[in-house]
Amino acid sequence: MSSIKPPAALDALVAAFKRLPGVGQKSAQRYAYHFLQRDRDGAAQLERALSDALTNVQHCERCNTFTDQPICETCLSPRRDPGLLCVVETPADQLMLEQTLSFTGLYFVLMGRLSPLDGIGPNEIHFQRLLARAADPAVREVILATNFTQEGEATAHYLGEMLRARGINVSRLAGGVPIGSELEYVDGSTIAQALRDRRTLADR
Amino acid sequence: MSSIKPPAALDALVAAFKRLPGVGQKSAQRYAYHFLQRDRDGAAQLERALSDALTNVQHCERCNTFTDQPICETCLSPRRDPGLLCVVETPADQLMLEQTLSFTGLYFVLMGRLSPLDGIGPNEIHFQRLLARAADPAVREVILATNFTQEGEATAHYLGEMLRARGINVSRLAGGVPIGSELEYVDGSTIAQALRDRRTLADR
Repeated sequence: MSSIKPPAALDALVAAFKRLPGVGQKSAQRYAYHFLQRDRDGAAQLERALSDALTNVQHCERCNTFTDQPICETCLSPRRDPGLLCVVETPADQLMLEQTLSFTGLYFVLMGRLSPLDGIGPNEIHFQRLLARAADPAVREVILATNFTQEGEATAHYLGEMLRARGINVSRLAGGVPIGSELEYVDGSTIAQALRDRRTLADR
Repeated sequence: MSSIKPPAALDALVAAFKRLPGVGQKSAQRYAYHFLQRDRDGAAQLERALSDALTNVQHCERCNTFTDQPICETCLSPRRDPGLLCVVETPADQLMLEQTLSFTGLYFVLMGRLSPLDGIGPNEIHFQRLLARAADPAVREVILATNFTQEGEATAHYLGEMLRARGINVSRLAGGVPIGSELEYVDGSTIAQALRDRRTLADR
């Protein structure tokens, strides 16, 4: 009895999908079958999109976000305040901040967060480039807007220490109770944080 | 204040990933960022794999499984029993059956199961081709090995009725208690099925 061997091109496609984060054998197989069986147009579209993105998408020389120009539109905009530099983990975080319409400064995108166990150290989050960028005399304040996860907090702590040691003004997004939520349903560590960072009403 | 626009090639890549089943905006963004930021080699590998698969992977003219030849190796093998035709939903199911080393017949791969709500009817599971294949005088018995899900059972029921109406011998994989499991932890409908299909010991 001969055992069944899938075509080599199918195996190769499954292997390629497995390089995506969080995608194992089963999902990769499902993706490959889906494209080959039900959506060959989609497969061709993804092929072209990968090719275009590899050719055209680079990192902004100034803020490190994804862009198809040497320096992104945001960094070039004359309407943004060059005195405020907001440090985020990803372009997705940057978009979230933009959508609040409450930040008019510039950004630096780390493209990650410190995670020693995954081999992501200061080099991988472009720490030297951030230092050089933050040393620009136009920058009055660096706002650390990494996530409030363990790794995001550790990254903010590390960046804060290093930047302050160079005499740069550093701040961190406030942690606290989410707007609209009831204390009863907020976790204890958030409430503890909100207590520690409580503001006297005179501050407003 | 200008709002940030991601590069068009990045948007297009995210849109292409969203064509994969179960992949929404967040996952598609994560995939795109991962490839562009951490694994450009992987992106190039997937691009090539898609191109190769689209060019080389076709369906076997006889059994409908994925193959890079007009007729797959299994269908061409002289060591398989042409009297037994096993109907499965996917190539993955076919591989599972092969791995048991207990089936020496041939296959027909539906590449799906009936699912009217998703627009998958008899045409989409290649019913006419299965009929033609099963009508081969060499075929003594068609074994329905679709999944034991609601849709798989409905597919088996439909195919069984239609094939038997044409005078073809049809059987269904036995449903019952999984080997090695304790009754205490088996669900009620499985036990009910095992009771209905109980075999007298004389059968062995």
